Amino acid sequence: MAGDGDGRDSDCPFCAIAAGEKAAEIVFEDEVSVGFLDVRPLFHGHTLLIPRSHHETLADLPAELVGPYFAAVRLLSAAVPEAMGAQGSFVANNNVVSQSVPHLHVHIVPRVRKDGLRGFFWPRTKYRADEHAAATAAKVRAAVAARER
Amino acid sequence: MAGDGDGRDSDCPFCAIAAGEKAAEIVFEDEVSVGFLDVRPLFHGHTLLIPRSHHETLADLPAELVGPYFAAVRLLSAAVPEAMGAQGSFVANNNVVSQSVPHLHVHIVPRVRKDGLRGFFWPRTKYRADEHAAATAAKVRAAVAARER
Repeated sequence: MAGDGDGRDSDCPFCAIAAGEKAAEIVFEDEVSVGFLDVRPLFHGHTLLIPRSHHETLADLPAELVGPYFAAVRLLSAAVPEAMGAQGSFVANNNVVSQSVPHLHVHIVPRVRKDGLRGFFWPRTKYRADEHAAATAAKVRAAVAARER
Repeated sequence: MAGDGDGRDSDCPFCAIAAGEKAAEIVFEDEVSVGFLDVRPLFHGHTLLIPRSHHETLADLPAELVGPYFAAVRLLSAAVPEAMGAQGSFVANNNVVSQSVPHLHVHIVPRVRKDGLRGFFWPRTKYRADEHAAATAAKVRAAVAARER
């Protein structure tokens, strides 16, 4: 991080938006977070919510910011579809892979039925056998336990 | 909600998993949340995290559960890829549209580069003009303000 000591990365476009130095259509602001329209929306009203301070991924977000940050995600998950006359919302966050800007951002996208978004529910795979699923679960439990230690 | 007074919907398969009455490969548990393997994973290790109590969408999650629930999402966003030898994670939540089970659930999916998931970043659209984006932002801001009142 090319930081300057105040939680900002001087090369990061999202830090520049949070600082008011780069133009964006801001739709939400509080002490912790800033929400603005994605310039290349999946559907109109597609909003990105970022923490003001620079953290690359969700795992990097400090524990004390998790509650306030996701309280804003929750609010936008209702306000964005209400604003756009949509029925629902798609809330998503890419960490590392498919992450275009390495500053944590959650997408809030308005959804209407039959809007053409096949989304990530396709294609699906399966487990070879119950034992395969059990072995996979054991690996995840071990990784959880290592992080909880 | 066909509830029985303890935050449970008697017809809900995810409530049955949380109650230990329906089999699932559990990978995480705490007071607020339960995580288990999706039986039809996008990639192996694909985990669903649910709140123990029945809430249909993210907007319905009580304010006091937002912090603890997303603390678990944050933990799994790192633990799931670690367990599967993956580089990143895709964290997503569908509300109403594309929501297969009407009990809030967040997907935590391990991602590796070139894994074939085109995901939701395609196709994209744009705003007709700056004024179109500004008018859209104004609608979202109004919906945010109405909810903050």
